[in-house]
Amino acid sequence: MKFNPVTPEIVATLQQIVGEAYVLTAATPEEVKRYAHDETEDLHYYPEVVVKPVNTQEVSQIARLCHEQYIPLTPRGAGTGLSGGALPVHGGVVLSMERFNKIIQIDERNLQATVEPGVVNEEFQNAVKAKGLFYPPDPASKGSCFLGGNLSMSSGGPKAVKYGVTRDYVLNMEVVLPTGEIIWTGANVLKYSTGYNLTHLMIGSEGTLGIITKIVFKLIPFPPKNVVMLVPFRSSEEACAAVAQIFMAGITPSGLEFMEREALQWSSDYLKIDVPLPEDIESHLIIELDGWDLDLLYQDAERVYGVLEQFNTGEVLLADTEAQKEDIWRLRRNVGNAVRYNSIYKEEDTVVPRAELPALLKGVKEIGQRYNFKSVCYGHAGDGNLHINIIKGDMSDEDWNNKLTEGIKELFRLCVALGGTISGEHGIGLVQKPYMHIALQEKQFELMRGIKKTFDPHGILNPGKIFEMA
Amino acid sequence: MKFNPVTPEIVATLQQIVGEAYVLTAATPEEVKRYAHDETEDLHYYPEVVVKPVNTQEVSQIARLCHEQYIPLTPRGAGTGLSGGALPVHGGVVLSMERFNKIIQIDERNLQATVEPGVVNEEFQNAVKAKGLFYPPDPASKGSCFLGGNLSMSSGGPKAVKYGVTRDYVLNMEVVLPTGEIIWTGANVLKYSTGYNLTHLMIGSEGTLGIITKIVFKLIPFPPKNVVMLVPFRSSEEACAAVAQIFMAGITPSGLEFMEREALQWSSDYLKIDVPLPEDIESHLIIELDGWDLDLLYQDAERVYGVLEQFNTGEVLLADTEAQKEDIWRLRRNVGNAVRYNSIYKEEDTVVPRAELPALLKGVKEIGQRYNFKSVCYGHAGDGNLHINIIKGDMSDEDWNNKLTEGIKELFRLCVALGGTISGEHGIGLVQKPYMHIALQEKQFELMRGIKKTFDPHGILNPGKIFEMA
Repeated sequence: MKFNPVTPEIVATLQQIVGEAYVLTAATPEEVKRYAHDETEDLHYYPEVVVKPVNTQEVSQIARLCHEQYIPLTPRGAGTGLSGGALPVHGGVVLSMERFNKIIQIDERNLQATVEPGVVNEEFQNAVKAKGLFYPPDPASKGSCFLGGNLSMSSGGPKAVKYGVTRDYVLNMEVVLPTGEIIWTGANVLKYSTGYNLTHLMIGSEGTLGIITKIVFKLIPFPPKNVVMLVPFRSSEEACAAVAQIFMAGITPSGLEFMEREALQWSSDYLKIDVPLPEDIESHLIIELDGWDLDLLYQDAERVYGVLEQFNTGEVLLADTEAQKEDIWRLRRNVGNAVRYNSIYKEEDTVVPRAELPALLKGVKEIGQRYNFKSVCYGHAGDGNLHINIIKGDMSDEDWNNKLTEGIKELFRLCVALGGTISGEHGIGLVQKPYMHIALQEKQFELMRGIKKTFDPHGILNPGKIFEMA
Repeated sequence: MKFNPVTPEIVATLQQIVGEAYVLTAATPEEVKRYAHDETEDLHYYPEVVVKPVNTQEVSQIARLCHEQYIPLTPRGAGTGLSGGALPVHGGVVLSMERFNKIIQIDERNLQATVEPGVVNEEFQNAVKAKGLFYPPDPASKGSCFLGGNLSMSSGGPKAVKYGVTRDYVLNMEVVLPTGEIIWTGANVLKYSTGYNLTHLMIGSEGTLGIITKIVFKLIPFPPKNVVMLVPFRSSEEACAAVAQIFMAGITPSGLEFMEREALQWSSDYLKIDVPLPEDIESHLIIELDGWDLDLLYQDAERVYGVLEQFNTGEVLLADTEAQKEDIWRLRRNVGNAVRYNSIYKEEDTVVPRAELPALLKGVKEIGQRYNFKSVCYGHAGDGNLHINIIKGDMSDEDWNNKLTEGIKELFRLCVALGGTISGEHGIGLVQKPYMHIALQEKQFELMRGIKKTFDPHGILNPGKIFEMA
């Protein structure tokens, strides 16, 4: 793909479209720098220009301009991504959606909400909760990530195990195509059998098919009661094995998270929250049950205890207070930050059928021994979604950049052999692209390329992501 | 699109692929006739040949042959469709999936099942229920429809209101592309962010993008308890208004169905099941609650009664026995059959945000008065999905075939104006195609055509469905 540079004339046109105050150029390098990276490793790619439109018409004009001039256009949410999806690897224009920050309507009659894509996930959750409603998808970065970015990756989070991922809450969206046309992808309805499902095609397409400018979400009633347990295991493989057993007992927790000893240890140090961590404990599960009736939840908790009896666990902590529950969840949500604080790392977002988790974890450690890397594992065990943080520590740059790649390939081959795949919720973006051929055959790439060309004939939108075009 | 006829040489090749016993031709017209229609009105289109493959390799060989020879290839499930999706409108080959009838595996460790697409919905439901598991999507035709057909339309059914539609239970599928290549669309996992979601693109594509040969479903624990109520209303609009109120009270029923007086009357006559039907009753709601604890369900039922108090209802029937529950559901499931028994009819599968149902119903009746048609309405009110059966009765053929079309267009324009669309679960197929421009703009058609060409460059697979190619 051959692109053109951003000329002074194009900058001037962009300024006309959005106003001078909302165009950043190399004249203010410190401001541009913010848009050169996301939360993926230590990667930096500088855009030639950053624009901050405020409405759909402006986005449409920008897209048409970039389409006509063959200029790369990379949409950007909050920049919390972990696969480099928002990095402008071919330069060009970064389209920041930060001014699309309005909750347009919360429709209590229909249990729906219409929002702009730059609304922060947690702000949206709080706004609907104030009306007794629930928007469950809650990535660890919920305090800062944008809903539009969540759609682009179909983000999950701890609640996904009971309530599903972002995909399951999107009814309809307004999208600006790379050619500048504006469409709605569906209708504001719970069931839709009216042609190819463009809504579901857009979700998870990582900003390569269109720019989301409005989203209609489905909401559900907020379940007011919950019970949270922290369960220590003497064997990590047993912890993983317990996960499937809980579901097989007919229980559907609203959270079922796994943390290796070091994940909890590092997060506890990072947050300065004290957790008892006896020497013989290899890992923990967080188990949350939610619903409308506390007695019933305690009955379910008893059934969980029944399942746990067959495993070698330490003393279960049943959170007594809301503060204690919040501490447990903060510990979980901050594992990523704590790992980042400790070392350069690569995070692999593996996912397998949940009963294959023990085999996956065992394989990870065995591969780590052979390739001489250390890993800290945690994640949404109820979904079979294990985040494997590979720690650079004192590994040489040579080994980190080259030899490690082979180890990661082995990891992903194991996932696929177990019926899984290489990303459950973080997406492929830039950094997982080299591994895509492990999960997909050439024919699937061919179909994806054809879809991409249909939406984006000049290939300008977020180029260089997910798969190679040629 | 220019297609070639099926020559004797091609019949011979098809016989070589699947065996002579599994190829039907004009030599046995009575046998071929079965494959010339589905449950859509009184439409008949004859295929030149019917083939019944038994495995993926055979399907692949048939597809490649039709691709190379430019012969229309129409996949067919059980033929229970209501939009003409399985009708071979361009002749050619009908590919019957009736021999793909094996449940390959029910994986109790992972709460998953792998099946062939020709398994009957209810047989699958029963097989997983025997293991304590639940596959919720249950179209009215569940006793005969195939799972592959359910995927092609993303079928719903009464349980969708709580548990979602077919789409929500598909993890992965094996698909033969129109060019003969075989792919898997995803992985056997609950979360998937690994490139464009081909699984979700295939679901609801009505057999125009590929032929499903294996399906991996997600299952959930079977909720063993339920409560079923039949609630008579003196005003149909009030019945529809009550639907949204129940959800706004924080209750999520496992069934919330609406039936106009005549829908229930006709079904009751058809099944010879006696139902009290006082003269002042305009319509009924069926409300089902399910879960794990009967006391809790009765508490929820009390909350439903609380909501109903503000409406002018007759005496609520709370089903006492399993037999009575089954009778209520049989009455609902047989409305379609009863209407078909009474008259030629057209069924429109309208869907709107659920709080707009009263406006939709009022509009339907007003449009019917202006265009002089009678309608019997019923459907999945909890989803905002209203089936409008337009009765031919003594309408002239001229009015039925021409004037009525304008009335249907008005109906669909009303749906779209209310935030809805023209099909919630039956699909577009052949008979709704003329109305698609009411729901979609030219640009969406252009995207769909591009996707179709990527998958099916010769346009052979189920041609003439959903939208026009040129």
